[in-house]
Amino acid sequence: MAFTTKATIATFGGKLLKLAHKSATTGTDMNVNVFFPGPVADAETVTKKAPILYYLSGLTCSPDNCSEKGFLHATAARHGIVMVYPDTSPRGLDLPQEHDSWDFGEAASFYLDAAESTPYATNYRMETYITKELPELLLAAFAKQLDGARQSIMGHSMGGHGALTLYLRHPGQYRSVSALSPISNPTRCPWGQKAFKGYLGPADLEISPASASDSTIPAPWKGHDATELVKSWTNGDLKMLIDVGTADNFYINKQLLPENLEAAIKQAGLSGATVRYQPGYDHSYYFISTFGQDHVEHAAKYLLA
Amino acid sequence: MAFTTKATIATFGGKLLKLAHKSATTGTDMNVNVFFPGPVADAETVTKKAPILYYLSGLTCSPDNCSEKGFLHATAARHGIVMVYPDTSPRGLDLPQEHDSWDFGEAASFYLDAAESTPYATNYRMETYITKELPELLLAAFAKQLDGARQSIMGHSMGGHGALTLYLRHPGQYRSVSALSPISNPTRCPWGQKAFKGYLGPADLEISPASASDSTIPAPWKGHDATELVKSWTNGDLKMLIDVGTADNFYINKQLLPENLEAAIKQAGLSGATVRYQPGYDHSYYFISTFGQDHVEHAAKYLLA
Repeated sequence: MAFTTKATIATFGGKLLKLAHKSATTGTDMNVNVFFPGPVADAETVTKKAPILYYLSGLTCSPDNCSEKGFLHATAARHGIVMVYPDTSPRGLDLPQEHDSWDFGEAASFYLDAAESTPYATNYRMETYITKELPELLLAAFAKQLDGARQSIMGHSMGGHGALTLYLRHPGQYRSVSALSPISNPTRCPWGQKAFKGYLGPADLEISPASASDSTIPAPWKGHDATELVKSWTNGDLKMLIDVGTADNFYINKQLLPENLEAAIKQAGLSGATVRYQPGYDHSYYFISTFGQDHVEHAAKYLLA
Repeated sequence: MAFTTKATIATFGGKLLKLAHKSATTGTDMNVNVFFPGPVADAETVTKKAPILYYLSGLTCSPDNCSEKGFLHATAARHGIVMVYPDTSPRGLDLPQEHDSWDFGEAASFYLDAAESTPYATNYRMETYITKELPELLLAAFAKQLDGARQSIMGHSMGGHGALTLYLRHPGQYRSVSALSPISNPTRCPWGQKAFKGYLGPADLEISPASASDSTIPAPWKGHDATELVKSWTNGDLKMLIDVGTADNFYINKQLLPENLEAAIKQAGLSGATVRYQPGYDHSYYFISTFGQDHVEHAAKYLLA
């Protein structure tokens, strides 16, 4: 199969596989962790295919962080859901500015396909990787275990942005979406503006959160911003759950802006979105592990329906 | 109070405090993490004191590892149990051989008081620290929140050895004990022999697992070996739970030897000990997080009785 198994670890009655594979999309080796609950842990004894929940991680993370610290497997095991933890970018490259800061380049892909005009175009194609190549490879390699017709997506921080935008950009591919501390309006926050300028261009654009208005934001950027995307959503209930901690410094410093997403959902008259503000919680895995189980439950509601 | 609060983190409806304090016992600063469930998270609003469960970590760990990856707080929160994560040794010293290997010295105290004859005698007094100084300081600082009459202890690997031996050496101090992958017979395994030789002496002793017999093992060593200690236990039911993974390389390579502890318990005719072998599980936090909740449940049975 396309995957090399780097580790097989028993956990919560199932097993976590640490996999590596060559990606035609990114042109690099990629790592991905997959948790198989007990009933689908062994291809030989599977009687029923399991649904899939993708978890997109935040800035600086690898597939291991949430595998170890998110504590999603107890709930996934109970519902018989396979968890997939992709990496946060291609690795092993040496592109311009790719290793200059922790919030751009390696481990900071923002889960989009970089524009042709940028040095990232050839390798930073994470949207195609996550939505097309990776599911195809997984479904081929684990054909007896995975039900490709039942997929949902969730994520944290930059991965929350990834989950929301990939869900909104690919209607029908995912049955539900959820996000913990998501970057909800990237065109209006420093993280998002830096990333979009680098991956989408133009490179000479001068923009800051203070100056950003509808007319100064490049049109291609809006296509990767959840707050912009919900304005044109025409596919019914959003099936969306969001949690944000009120003591999260990135929320306080307006990197996340879930209130903008909330307002846009309301203005668009959309239903089926729940945004919860959790008093006193921060941005860390202490927050993720506390509420992440609710997010697996949210996905289970749609994946097992 | 004696403690400096380095971080306060909301998690599972309560809060985790990362504390530091000067220890008169070790002569150093010490770190300790404490999880307070919701009802005792705020001293001002406490109505009933909570019982305490100490978690002793394994080789190389700090108080943070299990706080982040053990996933004990969901169950502790449900039962209203305070979790205390001490450090694995004094830090910041420069004693002979203290930093030469990962399984001896810093982060590898084996939770005993080093003998007067060794260079560790002044600082490596972790038994006194864990059983006396730390509880006294915590009970003084959090007098409204902590019930010193209800304490249990658990641990992993070297911390499993620590939990078992401190429990057996201090009858009445802890209501129950449990251990994940414990070093169960340290006088007969390489880790234990290296540690006991360094901390207890004599420094010129030549001993190996193959040569270790009752007559070659120094008497003081036996006082810190759970398998030896159960032989003279006269305090009724052991109230002991042990889990070991059968794919744990340290178990396979005979560093843990739970089978020796099991045999000694049986030969002594003691009741109240459960030793479980978990098929396919390793030594990692993937194992700890899977079964650790059972260990909190085990403690809850006695702490809430």
